[in-house]
Formats: sequence, C-alpha cells, structure tokens
Amino acid sequence: MDKKLRLLIPGPTPVPPQVSEAMARPMVGHRSKGFAELTARLTGKLQQIMQTTNPVFILTSSGTGGLEAAVANTVNPGDKVLALVAGKFGERFRDLARVYGAEVIELSFPWGQPVDVAAVKEQLDAHPDITVVLATLNETSTAVVHDIRGLGTLTRDHGAILAVDAVSGLGGVEIRPDEWGVDILVTASQKALMVPPGLALISVSDKAWELIAKCKSPRYYFSLEAARKSLAKWNTAYTPGVSLFFGLEAAADLILEEGLENVFARHRLLARATREAVKALGLKLLMPEECASPVVTAVLSPEGVAVDDLRKLLLDKYGVLYAGGQAELKGRVFRIAHMGYADRLDVISAIAALELALSELGYAVELGKGVAAAQKVFLGGAN
Amino acid sequence: MDKKLRLLIPGPTPVPPQVSEAMARPMVGHRSKGFAELTARLTGKLQQIMQTTNPVFILTSSGTGGLEAAVANTVNPGDKVLALVAGKFGERFRDLARVYGAEVIELSFPWGQPVDVAAVKEQLDAHPDITVVLATLNETSTAVVHDIRGLGTLTRDHGAILAVDAVSGLGGVEIRPDEWGVDILVTASQKALMVPPGLALISVSDKAWELIAKCKSPRYYFSLEAARKSLAKWNTAYTPGVSLFFGLEAAADLILEEGLENVFARHRLLARATREAVKALGLKLLMPEECASPVVTAVLSPEGVAVDDLRKLLLDKYGVLYAGGQAELKGRVFRIAHMGYADRLDVISAIAALELALSELGYAVELGKGVAAAQKVFLGGAN
Repeated sequence: MDKKLRLLIPGPTPVPPQVSEAMARPMVGHRSKGFAELTARLTGKLQQIMQTTNPVFILTSSGTGGLEAAVANTVNPGDKVLALVAGKFGERFRDLARVYGAEVIELSFPWGQPVDVAAVKEQLDAHPDITVVLATLNETSTAVVHDIRGLGTLTRDHGAILAVDAVSGLGGVEIRPDEWGVDILVTASQKALMVPPGLALISVSDKAWELIAKCKSPRYYFSLEAARKSLAKWNTAYTPGVSLFFGLEAAADLILEEGLENVFARHRLLARATREAVKALGLKLLMPEECASPVVTAVLSPEGVAVDDLRKLLLDKYGVLYAGGQAELKGRVFRIAHMGYADRLDVISAIAALELALSELGYAVELGKGVAAAQKVFLGGAN
Repeated sequence: MDKKLRLLIPGPTPVPPQVSEAMARPMVGHRSKGFAELTARLTGKLQQIMQTTNPVFILTSSGTGGLEAAVANTVNPGDKVLALVAGKFGERFRDLARVYGAEVIELSFPWGQPVDVAAVKEQLDAHPDITVVLATLNETSTAVVHDIRGLGTLTRDHGAILAVDAVSGLGGVEIRPDEWGVDILVTASQKALMVPPGLALISVSDKAWELIAKCKSPRYYFSLEAARKSLAKWNTAYTPGVSLFFGLEAAADLILEEGLENVFARHRLLARATREAVKALGLKLLMPEECASPVVTAVLSPEGVAVDDLRKLLLDKYGVLYAGGQAELKGRVFRIAHMGYADRLDVISAIAALELALSELGYAVELGKGVAAAQKVFLGGAN
C-alpha cells in the first residue's frame, strides 16, 4: 500500500472530496452563459468570505501573482513604498516593490515577532509621501498574525493605501478589510480555502482605484483595470482556470455552510490545542502566543534534534509531512499547519506522530502527554 | 437529463478521463521529493512534445501569462519589436510589446491570410536593430497556420530573436523550434494538450537568454531567470498548479503513447474532413486551404444566416458549442475546433448538427451531404 500521506504543511493543504469532485466536471466554454453565472455566484461568495463589498477578482496564478498584481498596478518607479518585513513573505512583497522601481522604506522586525504599529506610525508621520504600505496578515514563515486592524487605522488618515498579503491566512484568520481599512487584499486558493493551487484572489478599494488610475507601470496579464472591465460582464480578462473555479465554488459552499465565525473558531481551537500539545512536550514556540497564527504553528526544534532528521522520520515512517523553517529559520524550527480542511483528530495524529518521532530520535518525551494536552483543550470547548 | 455538451471551441477543449482522474489525486507538497520527480519527468515529456532540447518552464497562468513572460523578459522601453499581426492573438502579442514600452513596428496582414515572409524580410533588412519578432503559429481567430519555419530562416541570420505564440496550436500543429530557429515558444494547457486551463509552457533558446540577461523590464512572477534557477532543482519559483501538473503528465503520456506524428496526422485528417464537409454544404472557408489550421476551421456564415442564431440553436437544441468570430470577424464567421481529445465521430457529430441547424434556419442543405464528405475523407485514409 502507498504511504497514507498526512499533509501538515501550510499550503497546498488537503482538498475535500467535494472540491475534487467539482474539479472533475467536464470542461465548459469560459465565455458561456453558464460560466458567467458561476463567476457571478462565486464572486458573491468570495465577497462574503473575504468580508468585503469591494470587487473581488480571480486571477489564474499562484498567490505571488496576486501580490505582483497589487504592486504592478499601484507602484511607479520612484514611488515611496513602506514595506513591513518580519519573515519570508514580507521580504517577497518588499522585493516586488523593488522590482517595480519603488523607493522602498523597509521596516524590519525580528522573525517570530509582530509588526510594531507605533513604529509604522512614526514612518508614516515622517513620510507623508508614502503611497503604499505593504503588510502581511499571517506570516507563514514565522506563524505570526500581524495587527492589520492597527495598520488600517494609520493608513485611513494618510494618503497611502494598505495592501495586505493574506495568501496564507484568509479563510482561517479573521480579516475585515472594509471595517479595518485594507485597500488591497490578496489571497490564494491553496491555503485555508482548500482548493489546489492556481488561483489568486484580490479585492480593491475605491482609494486603491485612484492610485491604480495614475500608475504607469507595465502590466497586462495582471492588469486590474482589465479584470474590472471583464468582471462587469462576469467574465475574466484571460482564460480562467476553469476546473479550479469549479473547485473554489465547492470550497466556498463548504465554508459558508459551516459559517465563517465557526470556521475561524475551529482554526483557533486547533491552533490552541497544537500549542498546548507542543508545550506539554517541553518544546518552545517561535512566536508569542498573543499573536500566534490560528492556521500554522512554528516550533523551535529542541536541543539535539535536527529538524531535517525529524521531518524525514515523520514522513518516511508515519507519512506525516511537516514544514521546515524558511530562510534564516531553516534548521531552527518546524511548522505544523492546521489550515483549511483540518479537524481535531488531524491535530491528534500530528502530535502523536511527533511524540513517536522525537522519542525515536532520543529526545525524552512522555508518550501521550502532548495528545492529552490537546484533548484537554478540545474538552474545554471552543476558544 | 442535463444537456450533453459537445465542446467544439478552440479551448478549453474536452479533457480525457485519464486527465480528470489524475487531477483528482490528493494534494502533495510542491517542495517534496515526489513532486520534484514529477517535474523532472514532465519536463522531459514536454520537451519531446514541444520538440526542443531547450529548457521548458511551466508557469501557473493562462497562455497570455506565458506571452507576457516572453515580452517582459526580453523587451526594454524603446526596443524595436516587429509584431506580425493577422488576427486577434497577433494583436495581443503586439499590445504586450507596447505595454512594455517597445517601439513596435507592426506588419499587418488581412485576417484570414498568412503572414508574408518576404514582407517580414524587408522589415528585418531595413531595421537591423530589431531585437524581437513576435509571431503566431496558429492564429485561432482566423484558423490560419503561419510559416514559422520561413520566419526562423530570417531571424537566424539577424540579431532578433523569434518569439512564437503557439498557445492554440502546439500538440496538434507541427512546430520544430530547434530546427526552425524559434527562440521563445509559448503554449498553454487547455488547447491541444487536453488539460484544463491554468498552465502556460515556455521554452527558451540560448540566443534568447542573451537578450533576457540584458533586459531591465520589471518582472517577478513571470521572471524566466527565477524559473531557470528553480528548475535546476526540478522546482518552480512559486507555488505551481499541482493538480494541473498531475493532469498535464497524464495528457503528455496519452500524446506520447499515440505518437507525436500520429497526433499531428489525426489533427490534419479531422481538419480536412471538416473542410470537405462544410464545402459540400456550399459554405465557404475564411482561410486558404494551403495554410488552413489542423486544429480549428473558420467558416463564413452563409448569406441570410446570423452567426449568433446558428450558435444559439446548435447549443440549445443539440448541446453543440461552436465558437463565433472575434473582433472584426464577429458575426461573419463561426469556428469549429477539432483540437486535442477529438476523433472522427466528433467531426461527424459536429457536421450533422450543423446540417440540422442550417436546415432549421432556412438555409437549403441536403441532409447528410456534409457528413458523407467527411466520411469519404476518413475512408481515403490519413492525409
């Protein structure tokens, strides 16, 4: 028998059978009436999930394509862009602004720590000519959720727009773009939205459209004006990933049936159980609990245990795939995702396998102690 | 019962069950050993199908994203680009060059006619500083195949690279980039390759890399240098469309099992049968037969028959979806695709439905005459 794979990486995440079934539907014309109806329905459902009344565009690309759309449509060479960097994906957004010739003001924070809103305020006060602030909702590389609401209160009274990379968070981490003042929100299909990779979603505020209208940077495939023009007819500017659209509607239905608040509560519960479990095993978290991600947990590898050995053993012997650390965290942390199509027994399995593997690698662990800690959280009820 | 849809548009095309099955596989990590092995195998198979020893990069986007990659990586503002335009997709490639600030020399040909290689030679002789020539293999909007081999003989002795949009042709229309001197070749998953939309493929010659190294235009998601760096480790720069990769390997296997020459011969046969059938019904082709596409046929709508009425009747009553005309051909032609997962009885069905619909719309047609003409081609054997 093939290894039964348990995918515990922060994307791609496991795909529910309803989504796989929808994706197996026969192909249809992307300019057909039926597909326009699907696009209209899907857009409405995504607006609910993204908690915005702004238009939501579906781009056929990975999340990074959506981030490039955010930058290519708003940043001119020489524009002053404030990039908030506290991990690998903050760096990516910053790098995109540099590629488009921005004068980037980089505000860095230690990897594993949250963005300091007061420090952002200082920069915005000092530079009234900043046009774009680039932020990350859920920094996957560090398992930290940043204070987007706090950032929105700053940009609301400033000329700058707030563009947020919510690729790995949205659908599992609360974000209220309209209420909090997020102007551009980017996410992708393969994380908490439970669909295979290949679609990026982007919502755009009126304030952002003003900037877009003045932006001269080259863009074609990722042109938001082209996307807007087409969406007026419930169409896409270029051939969409039809099967992924089918899958995304099935996933959106699952999320809306469960209820957005319940989905968020489930993620918070799984995250808390995971944290209590690893702490019960004597392990340390990378990030402070008050800003810990509900969709992924970053754990410092204990003294004497090499992350690569741990991950290899988990995969080879138990079919469990954890993520390692990225960039400067490589070799220092491992990450356990509890994102999207994930439930309590997925966490239990992940922790039980961790106990076994640590034990086999010579790290003293009381078998079942992490599992029991997670169980206690579950019996204690929702977060 | 739901209408049984017969998809006869030039993309997305019908998906074979083997491809749908492959796409329903559970998600895997895109940085896993297994996925790297898939990428390595798939790259080799795509090189066979694309008939090139150049690297082939798989971008998660529609074909237009691949075209943008071709331009964004080679065209600087002010560069002299020769755009060959004889239909909607020629226009798109030209527009992309303009978006990236090129000084575009546009050489236009009537829609429905092939590019005149002698006229291209004149331009190349007159402008030794042209850096990029943009051409279309199979202009879907007009069902014309252009003489890429002829263009390659010109650019081989010129400083310019030859970039070819083979989105709608490749896998059904012969193209030999290495032999013919094509430097950048772009295609996409949802045409003759029989996979849902969402992947663009792009191959790059040594001559093109020299230009890419000197290109300063902004690009990140579509950066070919980033793609090359990642492919060296059988990886992709950004999260790939995992399920589409699964499907693309299944489709590549089908093509290679049938044999590339047999696949081309099948397309030529279906195209000839379609042309003979429509001519037997007294209809006229848009394009001359000597440059007629093997994957799509464009037919002038007969006097007194509105294209929209014909298409609506075909779809509503018979579940048959033909394509209409695009841009200046809107209302003047309809197009029948025989591309990818298509066989002789698909052509017969398409023609039989056409006979019925034309008859119902008051156009005098001898029922069965088009079908018989197609059958005669089939009995006559391969092209």
